[in-house]
Amino acid sequence: MEEKLLRILAEDVGQGDITTELTVPEGRMAEAEVIAKEDGVVAGIEEAKVLLESLGLNVEALTADGEVVKAKQTLLKIHGDAKTILAAERTLLNLLSRMSGIATTTRNLVKKIQKAGLKTKVACTRKTAPGLLYFDKKAVLIGGGDTHRLHLDDMVLIKDNHIAIVGSVEEAVKRAKEGCSFSKKIEVEVTTIEEALTAARVGADIIMLDNFSPTQIKEAVKQLERTGFYGKILLEASGGITAENILEYASTGVDIVSLGEITDSAKTLDISLEIVKLQK
Amino acid sequence: MEEKLLRILAEDVGQGDITTELTVPEGRMAEAEVIAKEDGVVAGIEEAKVLLESLGLNVEALTADGEVVKAKQTLLKIHGDAKTILAAERTLLNLLSRMSGIATTTRNLVKKIQKAGLKTKVACTRKTAPGLLYFDKKAVLIGGGDTHRLHLDDMVLIKDNHIAIVGSVEEAVKRAKEGCSFSKKIEVEVTTIEEALTAARVGADIIMLDNFSPTQIKEAVKQLERTGFYGKILLEASGGITAENILEYASTGVDIVSLGEITDSAKTLDISLEIVKLQK
Amino acid sequence: MEEKLLRILAEDVGQGDITTELTVPEGRMAEAEVIAKEDGVVAGIEEAKVLLESLGLNVEALTADGEVVKAKQTLLKIHGDAKTILAAERTLLNLLSRMSGIATTTRNLVKKIQKAGLKTKVACTRKTAPGLLYFDKKAVLIGGGDTHRLHLDDMVLIKDNHIAIVGSVEEAVKRAKEGCSFSKKIEVEVTTIEEALTAARVGADIIMLDNFSPTQIKEAVKQLERTGFYGKILLEASGGITAENILEYASTGVDIVSLGEITDSAKTLDISLEIVKLQK
Amino acid sequence: MEEKLLRILAEDVGQGDITTELTVPEGRMAEAEVIAKEDGVVAGIEEAKVLLESLGLNVEALTADGEVVKAKQTLLKIHGDAKTILAAERTLLNLLSRMSGIATTTRNLVKKIQKAGLKTKVACTRKTAPGLLYFDKKAVLIGGGDTHRLHLDDMVLIKDNHIAIVGSVEEAVKRAKEGCSFSKKIEVEVTTIEEALTAARVGADIIMLDNFSPTQIKEAVKQLERTGFYGKILLEASGGITAENILEYASTGVDIVSLGEITDSAKTLDISLEIVKLQK
Amino acid sequence: MEEKLLRILAEDVGQGDITTELTVPEGRMAEAEVIAKEDGVVAGIEEAKVLLESLGLNVEALTADGEVVKAKQTLLKIHGDAKTILAAERTLLNLLSRMSGIATTTRNLVKKIQKAGLKTKVACTRKTAPGLLYFDKKAVLIGGGDTHRLHLDDMVLIKDNHIAIVGSVEEAVKRAKEGCSFSKKIEVEVTTIEEALTAARVGADIIMLDNFSPTQIKEAVKQLERTGFYGKILLEASGGITAENILEYASTGVDIVSLGEITDSAKTLDISLEIVKLQK
Amino acid sequence: MEEKLLRILAEDVGQGDITTELTVPEGRMAEAEVIAKEDGVVAGIEEAKVLLESLGLNVEALTADGEVVKAKQTLLKIHGDAKTILAAERTLLNLLSRMSGIATTTRNLVKKIQKAGLKTKVACTRKTAPGLLYFDKKAVLIGGGDTHRLHLDDMVLIKDNHIAIVGSVEEAVKRAKEGCSFSKKIEVEVTTIEEALTAARVGADIIMLDNFSPTQIKEAVKQLERTGFYGKILLEASGGITAENILEYASTGVDIVSLGEITDSAKTLDISLEIVKLQK
Repeated sequence: MEEKLLRILAEDVGQGDITTELTVPEGRMAEAEVIAKEDGVVAGIEEAKVLLESLGLNVEALTADGEVVKAKQTLLKIHGDAKTILAAERTLLNLLSRMSGIATTTRNLVKKIQKAGLKTKVACTRKTAPGLLYFDKKAVLIGGGDTHRLHLDDMVLIKDNHIAIVGSVEEAVKRAKEGCSFSKKIEVEVTTIEEALTAARVGADIIMLDNFSPTQIKEAVKQLERTGFYGKILLEASGGITAENILEYASTGVDIVSLGEITDSAKTLDISLEIVKLQK
Repeated sequence: MEEKLLRILAEDVGQGDITTELTVPEGRMAEAEVIAKEDGVVAGIEEAKVLLESLGLNVEALTADGEVVKAKQTLLKIHGDAKTILAAERTLLNLLSRMSGIATTTRNLVKKIQKAGLKTKVACTRKTAPGLLYFDKKAVLIGGGDTHRLHLDDMVLIKDNHIAIVGSVEEAVKRAKEGCSFSKKIEVEVTTIEEALTAARVGADIIMLDNFSPTQIKEAVKQLERTGFYGKILLEASGGITAENILEYASTGVDIVSLGEITDSAKTLDISLEIVKLQK
Repeated sequence: MEEKLLRILAEDVGQGDITTELTVPEGRMAEAEVIAKEDGVVAGIEEAKVLLESLGLNVEALTADGEVVKAKQTLLKIHGDAKTILAAERTLLNLLSRMSGIATTTRNLVKKIQKAGLKTKVACTRKTAPGLLYFDKKAVLIGGGDTHRLHLDDMVLIKDNHIAIVGSVEEAVKRAKEGCSFSKKIEVEVTTIEEALTAARVGADIIMLDNFSPTQIKEAVKQLERTGFYGKILLEASGGITAENILEYASTGVDIVSLGEITDSAKTLDISLEIVKLQK
Repeated sequence: MEEKLLRILAEDVGQGDITTELTVPEGRMAEAEVIAKEDGVVAGIEEAKVLLESLGLNVEALTADGEVVKAKQTLLKIHGDAKTILAAERTLLNLLSRMSGIATTTRNLVKKIQKAGLKTKVACTRKTAPGLLYFDKKAVLIGGGDTHRLHLDDMVLIKDNHIAIVGSVEEAVKRAKEGCSFSKKIEVEVTTIEEALTAARVGADIIMLDNFSPTQIKEAVKQLERTGFYGKILLEASGGITAENILEYASTGVDIVSLGEITDSAKTLDISLEIVKLQK
Repeated sequence: MEEKLLRILAEDVGQGDITTELTVPEGRMAEAEVIAKEDGVVAGIEEAKVLLESLGLNVEALTADGEVVKAKQTLLKIHGDAKTILAAERTLLNLLSRMSGIATTTRNLVKKIQKAGLKTKVACTRKTAPGLLYFDKKAVLIGGGDTHRLHLDDMVLIKDNHIAIVGSVEEAVKRAKEGCSFSKKIEVEVTTIEEALTAARVGADIIMLDNFSPTQIKEAVKQLERTGFYGKILLEASGGITAENILEYASTGVDIVSLGEITDSAKTLDISLEIVKLQK
Repeated sequence: MEEKLLRILAEDVGQGDITTELTVPEGRMAEAEVIAKEDGVVAGIEEAKVLLESLGLNVEALTADGEVVKAKQTLLKIHGDAKTILAAERTLLNLLSRMSGIATTTRNLVKKIQKAGLKTKVACTRKTAPGLLYFDKKAVLIGGGDTHRLHLDDMVLIKDNHIAIVGSVEEAVKRAKEGCSFSKKIEVEVTTIEEALTAARVGADIIMLDNFSPTQIKEAVKQLERTGFYGKILLEASGGITAENILEYASTGVDIVSLGEITDSAKTLDISLEIVKLQK
């Protein structure tokens, strides 16, 4: 993680922060505060510490990942070389703002479901900002969501395009079961109730009901109950789910609801950095 | 750029796409289409080509960066090894969706200003997704915006925290002018009209009026005209500008208006990939 | 994979093959054959092709990964720049010899079990040559074995040291189930029958019976049958299993037997490279 | 070396050790012991320290590279963050087991020759596990052997394939002498006594008698004595030498005997890691 | 910078300093002095400290970058592991010698101009040792010169080959102004007075008079004064300027004179390292 | 080598050549010529080809490394994308100019010695531009010189600082002979005739007479002849040797004379690139 963070910083800084080089004296020490400008759930504190400490700065975290914070609340105190603080400022804030924004959105969805007395998990998808899969998904986790697959080798997930190439759900699952290690789960994305029943019958561990309406999902659940599969495999609803309609989907009997918008159209949480003290 | 794209792909794929490995036969060739699911401005086509061609796939671009597209329009045709297409699918779509989303937002703002008969430039800031500065800013450029600083050594930009450390606008500009190469411009972020006049007097090339209301900006413009600086230096308005109030700011007499939300809370454009043909 | 192979080659070559530089004329073309010196199962052909083609050499594979070959059989024909062939020779042979050695050993074990009419899978462990996990495990796969976990994030595998730290099997599985994504399996390593029953009860997907004798395993199987878990979870025997006693373990009713020696004390298959033709 | 070790660790761990993440509490401190499970020569202690210390762990080495140890002897005590210890466990053991296995085998061969009152050096070849040349050869050195060439630019070593391309031993040595720096030695691999005499005559520093029987080597030594070269150049016997017949070869009058099997079919030394104490 | 320095050291050392490994005992501590063997301006002290400290050595700098030193003066005291000091010796001296040589040459030119009562800046060009742009230019800065462009994205510099491709100075500047961010300056290289006037008229920020004689430059200055541009844009003289004729050029009225020879044919300053004390 | 060249190019270009991006149309093809502006020996042609071809440009070399060229002679013709040619121009010229400058200087020294009827080799030292060891030494080789050690593991070279630490020449050579592989030569740097005799007696392969005057060298040669070592070991003179006095040193009976100034204060050869043709 440290390597990723330093690479992001390096790209951001380019060949040096000339403003700071030119204006701030060598060896000037400063204290800075990172402050939330609006309410939300904080995420990225661990990353912030790794980043800042790897640059030789002292960091005191006044909050922890997952905590609910109020506007004007101080999240971190940073102490060290003023030049270094200024060079890292934007990278630090971009990271914290995005991760906290995602965690805040996730938590709101999770709370909504819990308040409705449901146990359905809220999962994200692989629709993230390019290259930010790790940070985006970690923010979802901090917000109380399920990260789903982090990498393409995490589990077998047979999607529409795989089925299109292979020819049928049966054949795709058969190939997966024959070739894959006993240590992996197999999920199948289906678009009809018939496919869902087939997937269950040929041994999928998880079934993703893709772009099903809540009514269609309920029908699928009913037929899986009738055939004895319900409760033995996991069911995931995906496609078309938003903050507005999430309860409708979550109450259909599925184990997981997943949404792309948590991570791919994330709104940042407004966070800023202020130099609060200077030392000679 | 190719290196960055392949690194993003590598992180995304992890240690291999096991689903595709297990289900799609070695050497199976396919044709896929990348399709817009909503109207917008396309960006990331050049990146998409670099990424796909570096993986040995043939790509035919039916659109170019900056083109306005309609929902259901095909953007790219891809031909090649089916396994490779599927492994790259998510990375490709994440990139195109984000860049096109940013370009679309930017263009809407630029058009709004042009329709009002104004020549004010729309610029983004360094508030981007962490590590995506290059791609986010390129998308702004494609949408008709100004990229502002790409890196911290692009120009001298003296901000509030620099002035806090150095003591005054005069001193900060003096240090910058003494130490920096003749090849760089110097911009100063100011929070009062007095600071703006000082910055102009000590030789700044550009002045950023930070968190000024439109009324305050007009007053600053008036005083800069009176002192003979208006027209000789560039003026940028920044802070608090949104899609809603952008015209108010753009019509104050500044040369540039800049907004963080174009890149840090970007909404993606919905784009998908479909396998359309298979070959033995 | 190409990157890994080229890094291995780079380390091997150091700062250039001076013998070849000094004795072989620039631009001399040659044809070489890679020949098995003993019977076995070939593995590493795909890697060999990637390595050689990335160096600009033409490769004709006369065998494929997993094929049984005889002594003196030609595996590959290579055509291209003589200097390049000689610089790559040792890296190529080290790779093919090791992977083929591992595949040969694995296949012998798999055949032994199949001939006894058993369906037990043969798996390797994470005891590999340092840094060669990918190549060693792929060779096991080619030999017909199961690769088990490739990486530490492939599934949850709770081992003795985890249980020692956490306090109990129950607590360890409970924490794992709460925190981990629905997409992962959970395996528990147990050292007593009681622990095995506990692990099954608290919801493990797989149980590894560590250093159990065949008799102890049979007793564990009996008790798991009695409590209704047998057949619903997977059972793996590990520890103390060798080529000699593998049938005893495989016939106890477990689903998988795993051995470290396949990969950590692998005997190479003898393979050599000969220049067979020269061109001006 | 630290970089290589961390890369091996990184590949081994993949994207994180999820079991440890899920079960071991943040900040839990532990003490672990690395223990030999059989007698042998220890190698890899320096690497182990570099690896563990670069991860922030405290290491106390109770043995040093090259020491003879007994089964059940503790090699290292490790103190630090429990999560980190567990994540590094397998990489650490894979490294120590392989290096110690190679050192043990080497030392047995060296001792055998010394007990017979001979001064012949035991050297390894470039037949190592792919990518492990440095660690495998260092283990040979620790076991008392000679590392021979580490890299292809260490000395000029004209082999059969070079001679096949160039046409003759004379021509090959001539080219090497003309082009190479005065700082390098030149070795020639020969397959007949005539070639050996030619190589000596044209100025080779070292002659490798490849696949000569002990009788043939003695005849070569006799003729080199007769022509005045014996004692002025070094003689190496290579090919067909094993632990069983090594004394026969070592007593022929050659300076060096070299064997591939020390490194390419190394048997590991059994070593394990145990958590022995926990701290809150 | 640390990364660059360590890469240079790594290339220099290759796979280890075998002389030091073989002769210097493990853990031997030593004190060394870095001493100037001739008079000059010191540069590279900051780099030296970063390099040595990143290797775990203690460094005491007795001089700072930009100081004038005398022959026999001690520049640095180094204390630490003797092996490490010796492995780094040559890299350290190569860096200090080159940077100090460049700084010394630059300072001599700057002083010459200042003594003549002129304010013309002395700038270097991009003609540096390949890959040493950063270190070479930093040495120029330390010697009192202007670094000009560090990278090709620092400013727009339209050269002869660009104009040849585009067709005219007007067209080239027009394209640059339309496409580039407001944060960048635009410089144009011209070969005639007409082109200089055109460049000024179409809005260049800086004009480079390439291979103009002092007389031609004076004429250009006169005509720019006449047309009202002189004083509003910067003028740079480049091409054919040497240590001998620099005053002639500097006194023509240009703002900057630039020379390639400062960096591309730099004479090193003679500096050596001596072990002065040993500790057990 | 390609990797090194591309890294140098990458550092040189920074984040893109904005001038070329802004002024040269996408897809414009051009032909360029690389032309010598003064007489000399060409070096770097192979590197130039690798660099340019790796960028997708076509290169026709009209000269080869080591050829003597005249002013105005065309060295290379380049054909391809105009943007790419311009972005690579400076890196290409910096490389060719430096390498050709070093080769030219080397050749002049070698010719001087050959004309005097001497066979003494001219060698460079490790005093090179930092990080350019490989390119600088290759240029020496092309100019007809000996590269001496390329890396610190090429041979054992016991220098003053090693002897200072170890205590004596005898002890240093003894340690080196015991610990090092039979494949390496041992050179000793000595400062007195007594040390030279000692080094010869204890078995050094090469003796470097450091800072000896020609008279002192002759005396050393005489005493080595008397003790029977002359002709059996190699002798190198180093320190204080320049283009002016090289013949005096070369005629003393040593095998090699070595000079730092060939590589550390190299004068470049003036070479330029011109766009000669444009295509639509």
